[in-house]
This record gives sequence, C-alpha cells and structure tokens, in this order.
Amino acid sequence: MSGLAGLPVGAILDYASVLIFALTGALVASRQQLDVVGFIFIAALTAVGGGTLRDLLLGRDPVFWVGRPGFILLIAAAAVLVFFTAHLLESRYRALLWLDACALAVAVPAGVAVTMALGHGPVIVLIMGVITGSFGGLMRDVVCNEVPLTLKQGELYLSCAFAGAAAALILTALGFAGLPALIGCGLVTFALRAGSLRFG
Amino acid sequence: MSGLAGLPVGAILDYASVLIFALTGALVASRQQLDVVGFIFIAALTAVGGGTLRDLLLGRDPVFWVGRPGFILLIAAAAVLVFFTAHLLESRYRALLWLDACALAVAVPAGVAVTMALGHGPVIVLIMGVITGSFGGLMRDVVCNEVPLTLKQGELYLSCAFAGAAAALILTALGFAGLPALIGCGLVTFALRAGSLRFG
Amino acid sequence: MSGLAGLPVGAILDYASVLIFALTGALVASRQQLDVVGFIFIAALTAVGGGTLRDLLLGRDPVFWVGRPGFILLIAAAAVLVFFTAHLLESRYRALLWLDACALAVAVPAGVAVTMALGHGPVIVLIMGVITGSFGGLMRDVVCNEVPLTLKQGELYLSCAFAGAAAALILTALGFAGLPALIGCGLVTFALRAGSLRFG
Repeated sequence: MSGLAGLPVGAILDYASVLIFALTGALVASRQQLDVVGFIFIAALTAVGGGTLRDLLLGRDPVFWVGRPGFILLIAAAAVLVFFTAHLLESRYRALLWLDACALAVAVPAGVAVTMALGHGPVIVLIMGVITGSFGGLMRDVVCNEVPLTLKQGELYLSCAFAGAAAALILTALGFAGLPALIGCGLVTFALRAGSLRFG
Repeated sequence: MSGLAGLPVGAILDYASVLIFALTGALVASRQQLDVVGFIFIAALTAVGGGTLRDLLLGRDPVFWVGRPGFILLIAAAAVLVFFTAHLLESRYRALLWLDACALAVAVPAGVAVTMALGHGPVIVLIMGVITGSFGGLMRDVVCNEVPLTLKQGELYLSCAFAGAAAALILTALGFAGLPALIGCGLVTFALRAGSLRFG
Repeated sequence: MSGLAGLPVGAILDYASVLIFALTGALVASRQQLDVVGFIFIAALTAVGGGTLRDLLLGRDPVFWVGRPGFILLIAAAAVLVFFTAHLLESRYRALLWLDACALAVAVPAGVAVTMALGHGPVIVLIMGVITGSFGGLMRDVVCNEVPLTLKQGELYLSCAFAGAAAALILTALGFAGLPALIGCGLVTFALRAGSLRFG
C-alpha cells in the first residue's frame, strides 16, 4: 500500500507519530527539568519506543529508524523546540495529555499498517496496534517515574487503542482495506481518547 | 525432544507458563483496579515477557507467540476470567504469590528446554532459564509500580530459578536428559520457592 | 579494526565495560540488600543491558554475550567479589558514582566502535554510543527503584556520553579514525563526567 511521495503509508504514519510522541516526551522531560540532551533522550525513547518493540517482535531488520537518520533529527528538533518554548505553555500537563492523544491516534494505525503489510493475522495486528501506540509513552513514564498514563484509572487509554485497531480490522473485513481502514482506526482512537479526556 | 500431541516440550511448557503468568498479571491488574483491556495488557506483558526476551536474545525469529494467536487468546481468556472473579478471592496477594510460584516452576524449565534445543552451552542455558522465569514478573511489577517480587528481600526468588536451572543441567550431565531433567528443574524450583513462601 | 590478542577493539571495550558496570550493579544490589543471586542478576542487567539493546537494534545476531560464556562468568565473579567486600567500603554510593563514570567512559567508545565497524552513519553512531553507555545503568536504577543517575538533575550524564560520542566522530572526520578516536571518546566522556561529579 503506497502513500505520499512514494513512501508506504506505514512509514508516513511512523514519521508523524514519531514527531508528536517526541513532543510529549520533551514535555515530560521539561516537567523533570532535564538538560537539553535529556530532552532529546526522553523524546527519542517515547517517539520510537513503541515502533521499535513492534519491529523487534516482528523480526523486521533493521528496526524502522536505524539507517534513517531523518527520524532522529526530527526528534532532536522537536525536543530542542520544546526545550526553548515549554515555559510559555500555561499548562504543560494539559498540552501533554492532548498531544499524547494525537500521537496515539497516529501510532495505532502506524502499527496496524506495518503489521498488515507483513501479512499477519488479526490477533497480531490488534496486538501490534496497541503496542505501537502505547509502549513509547509507557517507557517515558516508567523511566521518568511518573504514574503511567497508559495504566491510569479512568483514562481507558489501552481500550481506546484496542478499539481503534479493532476498527481497522472491521473496516478491512467490510471491504474498506488500506487508507480508509487506517483513517477509521485513527478517528476511532482519537474520538474515544478525547471523550475520555473531556468527560472521563 | 517431542512431547504431547507432537508439540515440542518447550512449546508445551511455554503454553502452561503463559497461562499461569497471565493469571498473576491479571491479579496485579485487579489490585490496580484497571479496566478489562488493562487486565489483558498486564496479563500479556507478564505472560510473554520472559519468553519474548529469551527469544530476542537467542535470535529466534519470530518470537514464540507471534504467528500463534492461540497464546494471545489464552491470555485474554485468563485475564477476563480474573476480571470477573478476582473479587471472590479472600486474599488476592496470597493467590498471586502461589500462582507466581507455579508459573516460575513452569517457565524456568520452558526457558531451559528452548535454549538446550538450540544447542547452547550450560552458562547460556542457566541464564535463559532465569530470564524466562523472572522477566515477565519483573516487568509486571515495574510497570505497575509494585516492589518487584523478583528482587524482594527474603523471597530468594532468583535463587530458586537459578537452582532449578542448575538442577536441569546436573540431571542432564548425569544422563537424565530431556523430560526427567525438565521435571526435576520444575520440582526443585517449586520446592524452594514454596519453602521460601511458607517459612521465609 | 583489530586490537589486543586478535580481538576487535569493540569486543575488548565490551569486556571492560561489562566488568566495570557489573561492579556498579553489584553495588546497587548491596544497597538493596539482595542475596548473591540477586547481586549477579542486577550486575548482569547493568553490565550487558546497554550493549544488548545496541545489538538488538542493529540486528546483530547473536547478541554479543550469547555464545560467549566468558562475559557471564566475568559478571558473576565481579558480583561475588562485591557481595563479600561491599561492607568494607566507606561510602558505597561514592564508589558507585566513580565506578559508573569509568564504566560510561568505556561503554560509550564500545558502542561507537561496534556501530562504526558495521558501517553506520554518524547519527546512528552517536545514538548507539549514548545507548550503550546509558541503558545498562538506567535499567539497573529503574528495576531497583532508585532515581536513575542517567536522568538526575545536574548530573549531565547523557550530555557527557553525547559529547564523548561526538568527539569520536569529530576525531574520525579529522583523520584520527580507529583507536585514537576511541581513546579521545573515552577521555572526553570521563573528563566531563568527572567534572560534573566534582564540581556539579
């Protein structure tokens, strides 16, 4: 399945989720008052953590960002940007929550797209969607000793990821394979997560 | 080395340890009051964590549960069962400790069996037995922010795993390779762990 | 690039960093009052954690210590040594900090050497230098529930690793490839880290 500029859709989604998750990682780093290299480190851990675990589990060699320095440079730029601007935000935690919701809504379809492209069945697609969406943020929070957002009561974080991945599978089964299924996946994930943030 | 229904013994032990560790993961999730997808997530992390690390380190491709959706469905079933019944238990922590001891006594021989079948030497067999037995529970506790059972003073958790794996090596060296060595491994692990729980 | 006794320089640095990081891991285990198998476990996690992640990410198969039992025996010896002597130290934390600085100054060039030998570009070399230097200690601290040294305010830990890896790249670009670049990398890392410990 091919997307913009000849890049597969999975790769484009990987870039987008890396960028947004990097911003969330840098926001957590700013709550921890790290130096700029610490910002880049946490941003990178958050941004590539989920996709890296997915690739290791699926035996993709090399892992998606190795050999593509663009990913790391994108992360470094995002981290430096947050390093110089985070103090301008009224509520860093609020920004973090909403950015994280956006990142999740891009990373779940990224995981789904890559796993489907490798020809795996629905159970593995479901799992890899959830893993790609959640593990970067989970590692970010564990390493920074914050209560993991992924597992916080009332956030329903994993349920949103799960429902999004399930939506992709259902749309595919109904004949809307490819881009429509991935867009549906992202919309369902974001809508549920936004609902949980607003009314949860 | 072949076991029931044509499955290698290592695979059968993997199934059994996945099931029991999934139950312990779900019990920890219930202590954390997660939702049902959270139960499945923690159950899965606990159940496949150790074996997954073993497989990544040994370069087994794919990892044991990828491409075998049965593992994930088993975990989901165990998690849902605990989700609906955990409140019936008198002491969830007590149940957790004993189930974890059973899981350890199955996972250590699972790690030993798989590593021996790949032709590795005794040091790597020992390490992989301990890793397969302990890492799932370690990740469960780190992610849920509980004091890791693996490293709690007086539990002698890792020593039990180590002694069990050593027993398998000794039995193999004495001519009791295969099933007898694995059974001895499980018995030694369980006996020591049970002793630690009862008299520790 | 070949070093002592026909071993590549990367492998020699891996041995040295494994030994020193194992000592730091065992010191943390002694602060946690674990038993001797716990000492070996934490020592091993610390000692091979960074290099293992590097190898998994780079698709090196097998991981550097699998199939070379020497690494594990070295770790076990270091852990047992600390188990019997840690009480003789005046300040275990002080010893830990300085040993950790030495380990970092060996592990960063180890990561750089291995990654360069595989032909990767500068961004990946930089990343793998930092990962090899920092992840073992990070896992040690996360698992033992200590505030990660890697991320402590004012330690500038990651910045030292980053500067060291950058020094290796700059020296290589200036024509001092190989051993001189790696020695420069280690010296820069250690000098900055020591400065941070003494005046930080």
